[in-house]
This record gives sequence, structure tokens and C-alpha cells, in this order.
Amino acid sequence: MAFTFTILGSSSALPTSKRFTAAHVLNVHERFFLIDCGEGTQMQLRKYKIKLGKINHIFISHIHGDHVFGLFGLISSFNLLGRENDLHIFGPPDLEPIIHGYLKDFYINLFFEIIFHPVNCTRSVRIYEDDKIKVNTIPMKHRIPTCGFLFREQKKLPNLRKEMIEKFDIPISKRQGIKEGDSFTTETGNIVPNHELVIPAPEPKTFAYCSDTSYNEGILTQIRNVDLLYHEATYGCDLQELARETMHSTASEAARLARKASAKKLVIGHFSARYKDLTPLLAEAKTVFANTFVAEDGKTFKV
Amino acid sequence: MAFTFTILGSSSALPTSKRFTAAHVLNVHERFFLIDCGEGTQMQLRKYKIKLGKINHIFISHIHGDHVFGLFGLISSFNLLGRENDLHIFGPPDLEPIIHGYLKDFYINLFFEIIFHPVNCTRSVRIYEDDKIKVNTIPMKHRIPTCGFLFREQKKLPNLRKEMIEKFDIPISKRQGIKEGDSFTTETGNIVPNHELVIPAPEPKTFAYCSDTSYNEGILTQIRNVDLLYHEATYGCDLQELARETMHSTASEAARLARKASAKKLVIGHFSARYKDLTPLLAEAKTVFANTFVAEDGKTFKV
Repeated sequence: MAFTFTILGSSSALPTSKRFTAAHVLNVHERFFLIDCGEGTQMQLRKYKIKLGKINHIFISHIHGDHVFGLFGLISSFNLLGRENDLHIFGPPDLEPIIHGYLKDFYINLFFEIIFHPVNCTRSVRIYEDDKIKVNTIPMKHRIPTCGFLFREQKKLPNLRKEMIEKFDIPISKRQGIKEGDSFTTETGNIVPNHELVIPAPEPKTFAYCSDTSYNEGILTQIRNVDLLYHEATYGCDLQELARETMHSTASEAARLARKASAKKLVIGHFSARYKDLTPLLAEAKTVFANTFVAEDGKTFKV
Repeated sequence: MAFTFTILGSSSALPTSKRFTAAHVLNVHERFFLIDCGEGTQMQLRKYKIKLGKINHIFISHIHGDHVFGLFGLISSFNLLGRENDLHIFGPPDLEPIIHGYLKDFYINLFFEIIFHPVNCTRSVRIYEDDKIKVNTIPMKHRIPTCGFLFREQKKLPNLRKEMIEKFDIPISKRQGIKEGDSFTTETGNIVPNHELVIPAPEPKTFAYCSDTSYNEGILTQIRNVDLLYHEATYGCDLQELARETMHSTASEAARLARKASAKKLVIGHFSARYKDLTPLLAEAKTVFANTFVAEDGKTFKV
């Protein structure tokens, strides 16, 4: 079952000829979550063949244009395409009046419902849960209220051992119960304990999205052992001072956090437009955390 | 001297994988005018290598998202790039509070001045003039107040006849006066009339931008003999009824207007996303007005 993270925009504030601004799609078993929505997100979705109609949940980290300016066009297009499904938007409370203002300014009568979920950016809270995933916020340290998002797969049920099904000729009606923990009583009255009947399910995978933020060890407990950490790396360590002033991170800071959190894999993104070539940023991060990858528009990473 | 029209976005409401929404650049002797500003305009400017810093005047035809959503990102980028020059925006009066609202919503302190010029969309008025060009509005017929724009080159001065300069050894100090209409008195007192000294300048060229609009012969007197007419052709004549309802034009209507106006050349654009292949729209227009061309993102037309 797919659990992947696709980059739609890897640039920070200014787009470049190769990089659009922040937007990402998380595919959780064919359920699609949009994370941030910079200008041109709808074009990128089309370019990378992700159907607009599959997006029902949008998570906005903070109200800076490079994370939001694509929202207006995307909502307009949903409407023009005849969308009927509710659209859930999670973001800082101030985003809600902005969305309503835009609908008014541009004379838009929506044919679907926008359900806005205001998100408190100061502490970690559960903001979403369904049968596949649960999402918690991760408070970021930025110039305005900002939060990251932690996506954790729901615990999966174990698989039945085929050879045991056959051996005891276990009827279909009993199998779901066994997956959920039942033992099995044979015709002769023998009890076969549950652990002999199932193969444990793989551990639920986790994905953490951290953008925009200063280096912040305060989130380590939250992102500990995460399978895939996306962390902004707006600058290289050559611009450490600028990173501090603007409350962004460097590539080596992102890597340091990944190492301290014992993350399995790190993707760095949200690059300043001044970096035409990202090799130095990748190299910088890899010296601290070897399993680092660079975000590129259109690239997909397995969680 | 260049007088060209470049398409940045040729799609109507919905962008496609090949067509961005409405945005165009008019290059008048290396002075650049942006006409409409759909989502992703700044990316298209970069893609087609038009420097953002060269844009000082933006003309917005009406307040529908596919003509405006790129404005916010473009203004943000101007600011991030350290722009100091004034930015002149011409558009319907309601656009001004939208721009100010956006600056407030996104915490943007501009380092340059936006000078907003409210445009009355109900009659033709001169809204801009400099030493190279003058611009008049053309009232459009659309669902909301909308205007097109007529760009007319300023009359150029005639060129001096080289052979006459040499024959009479005309000093440099007299030449500008002759360009402006003076005759020349030789040392012996002979008067050489002006028309013998100069070659008349070519007629000023004109460009008309008409989008979005129903078919409207009311503008014929304004666009008569225009060198290049850009006219929207959202639909083909197969969707004449839909064109009427939504107050758009078909390809054959655009062509009929070009023929009646005795335009020299027609470019059709603003195509509905349903048309993957534009050949039928072009063919439809060409049966009415042979010198028709199809707008494509990145294509440049000589006026």
C-alpha cells in the first residue's frame, strides 16, 4: 500500500525557473493530502498527474504567500470542475477570513462546502484522524504562527498465516476475529492461541513535515524515529546568520535534527532562490546525516 | 524597434497542463506592459526570460481570478527582489481594496509604491501616455465590469534624407528642427522645403486587447484598421449558446469582428480547457478571417 510524499514546489519565497513555491502531496494508501499550497499548485498537480478531485484535505502550515497563494486558484478550479465533496482546510485561524474574503472579492459562489479547521500552532494536538491515518500538529518556530504536521499510519491488523488457515480449515466467518486477536477452537475442542495464527503487521509508518522553522530541538520527542522527515533547509551554513534572522534553518541544522531524532530518512527542501545548484546543500547535510535527499519538483519519496 | 505581443497564458478559467491562465506582455520599444496577470504569471515571465524588473505597468481587464490570481505572488516577488520603482496598476476600481487587503492579510510591507489607476469600464478613455505609446480603454461586454485596451504608438518623427544632409552640409544643430518640420535656408539664401529633406516616418502601429467579452460590434470604430487584434475565443461555434450565456466569444465571432474592423492580423486566445487541440478553432476563424493565429504560451507576435 502506497505511503509516499511528492514535492510540487521546492522553492522558498521566490520561485525559480525550475522550482515552484511550497506545495506537497502525501499519498496515504490512495488517500491524498495536500500540504501547503504555493502559487501554481494546481498546475503542478496537473503536470504530475495527480487528479484534483482526489484532494479533500489541505494542510496549511502558515500564512505566508509562498505557502498559500495557490489556494485561491485551486478552490476556483474545484468549483469550475463541479466539485461536490466537502473540502477540509486545516490552518492558522486567520486563514479562514482570508478565504471568505477571497470568495467575496472574486464573486465566487461555491457549489461545495469548505470546512475550515483552525489549528493552534503553539502545542501539539491531534487535528485529524480516519481509518488510515492520524495527524498531529508540530509547533514550528517562525516569524508568524506556524505548525508542521506529523502523519502516523493507523496500526494495521496482522495477516493470517495461510498454512494455519489450511491446517485447521478455519471458516471465513472466524478470520476477521482472529485478525483482531481471537484464538481458535478446533472441532475437537483444542484451543490454538492467536499468536500461532497470525503474522504481526508491519509497524505503522510516520512522516513529519517541518516548514518553516528555526532549528528547534523542542520537537525532538514528537519526531523521534520518524520514517521520513521533511525539513526545510532554506539556506546553507554559509548563511547561518541570515537563517537565524529570518527564522529559517540551514541544511546542516535540518540534518542535525534528523540525526538527533534518529529519523530513518531526511528530505530537505524550501530552498532559497539564490541556490541554482543544490549539490552543496545536499553535501552539507550528508556530512551530518547520510540518508539525506534533496527535494525536487515532481520527485516522490517513499515514507 | 520592437513592438511585440507575448502570450504568457492562453487558457480561460481553468489552466491545463499546457496552458496557463490569462497573462500577456506587450513590448513597446523595450518598455514592457503586462496585460492581465493569471496564476503563475511570475513563473511564466521567468520561463520566457522576461525580467520581472522591467514590468512597471500592469493592466487588469476585470476581476475574475484567471486574470488576477498571479498579481499577489508577483507583487511579493517584486518586494523580495528589492524593487524600488513605482508599480502602476490599471484596473476596475474594486481591485484597489483587494490589493490592499492582500498586503494586510499577508503581512507585507512594501518597499516600493503601488500607484493604482481606477479604470472606468463603460466608455473609452485615455488612461496612459508616455513618449512611446498611448493607451485607451475599450469597453467589453462581460458578466462583470471589464475593459480591453488599445495601445497606439506615438507618431514618430520622420527620418532625414542622407543625400540632402550631405548636399547642403546641414549642421547637426539644425537637424532636430528639420525632423520636427523646419525648412532649411542655404548659405546663398535658397529655401529648401521640409518635404524635400525628410522621409516620412512609418505610420504608428496599433494593438487592441479584447478579453473577456461577448461579440460586440460597438467597439468597431475603436479598433478599425488595428495592426494586431487579440480577441478572446473561449469556445468554438459548436458552443455558441454557452458563449452567449457566459458572455464569451467564439472563434468565428472573433474573426468576424477582425474582418469588419479591417484588422491586419488576429490572434485568438483565452481558450476553454475542453479544447486539447486548437486546430478546429483556428480553422473556424480562418474561414472568416484568413490572417488568424492561435495564442500559445510563450509565443510572440509582431504588432
